Amino acid sequence: MKIDGVAWRSIQVADDARTVIIIDQTCLPHRFVTTTLTTLDDAAHAIRTMQVRGAPLIGATAAYGMALAMWRDASDKAMNEAARTLLDTRPTAVNLRWAVERVLARLTPLDRNAREDEAYALAAEICDEDAAICEAIGEHGLAILKGHHEETGRPVQVMTHCNAGWLATVDWGTALAPVYKAHDAGVPVHVWVSETRPRNQGASLTAWELARHGVPHTLVVDNAAGHLMRTGRVDMTITGADRVTASGDVCNKIGTYLKALAAHRHGLPFYAALPSPTIDWRLMDGDAIPIEERGGGEVTTVTGCAADGTIGPVAIAPETTMPENPAFDVTPAELVTGLITERGLCDASAGSLAGLFTDQA
Amino acid sequence: MKIDGVAWRSIQVADDARTVIIIDQTCLPHRFVTTTLTTLDDAAHAIRTMQVRGAPLIGATAAYGMALAMWRDASDKAMNEAARTLLDTRPTAVNLRWAVERVLARLTPLDRNAREDEAYALAAEICDEDAAICEAIGEHGLAILKGHHEETGRPVQVMTHCNAGWLATVDWGTALAPVYKAHDAGVPVHVWVSETRPRNQGASLTAWELARHGVPHTLVVDNAAGHLMRTGRVDMTITGADRVTASGDVCNKIGTYLKALAAHRHGLPFYAALPSPTIDWRLMDGDAIPIEERGGGEVTTVTGCAADGTIGPVAIAPETTMPENPAFDVTPAELVTGLITERGLCDASAGSLAGLFTDQA
Repeated sequence: MKIDGVAWRSIQVADDARTVIIIDQTCLPHRFVTTTLTTLDDAAHAIRTMQVRGAPLIGATAAYGMALAMWRDASDKAMNEAARTLLDTRPTAVNLRWAVERVLARLTPLDRNAREDEAYALAAEICDEDAAICEAIGEHGLAILKGHHEETGRPVQVMTHCNAGWLATVDWGTALAPVYKAHDAGVPVHVWVSETRPRNQGASLTAWELARHGVPHTLVVDNAAGHLMRTGRVDMTITGADRVTASGDVCNKIGTYLKALAAHRHGLPFYAALPSPTIDWRLMDGDAIPIEERGGGEVTTVTGCAADGTIGPVAIAPETTMPENPAFDVTPAELVTGLITERGLCDASAGSLAGLFTDQA
Repeated sequence: MKIDGVAWRSIQVADDARTVIIIDQTCLPHRFVTTTLTTLDDAAHAIRTMQVRGAPLIGATAAYGMALAMWRDASDKAMNEAARTLLDTRPTAVNLRWAVERVLARLTPLDRNAREDEAYALAAEICDEDAAICEAIGEHGLAILKGHHEETGRPVQVMTHCNAGWLATVDWGTALAPVYKAHDAGVPVHVWVSETRPRNQGASLTAWELARHGVPHTLVVDNAAGHLMRTGRVDMTITGADRVTASGDVCNKIGTYLKALAAHRHGLPFYAALPSPTIDWRLMDGDAIPIEERGGGEVTTVTGCAADGTIGPVAIAPETTMPENPAFDVTPAELVTGLITERGLCDASAGSLAGLFTDQA
């Protein structure tokens, strides 16, 4: 998508065809900073510290992490160690495992000296595929937004959560791909951006990328979602997903479940938009998904930009307070109106998913 | 309640019997600062800037604001201007209107030179009444917590929202009064404190007062409430209320409604604890309650304590982002398991409320 008129991707290979350029998302929205990854450890660090985040972008970064490792040492030992290092960075995102396993499967049979080029080619392939997948999600979602606008004649009011925009993927985004498609097609759309504590990806990333591309939006605290739905100010909710079970349960950023409950209460559609690698075909029960418990400092502090321009955390709780910080929650399939995938819209059910992905299920 | 073993009230008259001491709650939890109110404008400023907050404490502060005004000038003109000044500070809290109207009704028939003493006497009466009301709420709520503990043999897991503790009232609190009563009676209780964006009264006030009194608790982001209820870690929710209709609809801090929806979904009791002045007998429909829209800076910034000890805001959104900031939401009576009042527990219904308050309804 565009940053003030200039096309960007969230991850791209530098002119040297080896190092990899990312946007350091921990500096947004206050400063636009790019970072160059030159080693496997750089890539692992970028994933672990959430310089890159969002399931698809984590997968793409892991693929380039494997490529960076092969650039230095393409031995079996280095390859398998790189895979382990990357898999250890974040426990929940299924795309991470998917990308690493795909690279391993492609490289393992190859001769050592063929692995480096092949790894870079495959990482680029994964990125291009992801951009194409997200654009297809956008096209399928566009039909929903366009239909709603034609029915009501009013701008479509979309609630979203966290950041499932192009910064979370390689391009287009998942939840926001339909929004960008609609906006670019002249369908009037307004996005309710919930800030998404504890890391505030809504306030810092979603608000930033929508503004840069020129999409109308309003920032609210997470607590406001129920009130906005109850008072008729939301037409539909579209979120991303970190993992979706084969039965349609949606694991996504903590707080998604509360939005789904409110949408259900008020008869408003609740969609999850996701590329098919997000689907964990081995799992039927969302309750079996391990929920990452992150450090409590994310709860007891908030990171932002002070009046003097320094970016850093401020404490919002007593020093001795004990926090808990579950990073995701699970929305059961019955609360999900539909899943917007690159192959189209389907019900959040095992049968409907299997019907759309006959080659996978 | 106690601050590290010493008994306190959130508002009290100084030794000079005229000036009024409050805790400046905008400095909590980082610094414990008391402030002396010496004029009507001090009192209005304290309410407007939320140095004092919580419906009952706002009412008590307004009563002392009238007394401070009478101390300077007890004319009809000054009295009526003081009432107007105080009523203009916050639009939603019914206790504010209730307290000011009660003082006006008592003072208006009096001779000018009797008004000052009578105003101070009445303000003290309002404070003592509030403390007694909250303690009674605590006793009635204690029965619920004790019953639950006796049934399960485990500590009672209470979810709360915002700050409805003793800092929000004169003493004891509303939602937290049952918790303090249980803790003091040896009934094991653990409180899930949700931080309550945008002003984080949970993180800054509820966590602080529970810690100072020694009650076990854990801080979570607002987004975590659904996940905690879904995974069986919450036994019941108890919140305060800013206004309750005669039909039992509960207007309370933004985000309360989402907790009520999650509690309903999981068959968990959801209680609102409130002193009867919080009931607006003239209103039957929660949708008719005007919802205060506060400044957007509360959404785009978070106030906290930096590493160097300075308390101030940090920006969490792009500078150009437009926010909305509804301060309250309405939970319809059908989602409310019960109302805990100073006269006992009743259903959230017009009939049940009228039965408990035959003198009012």
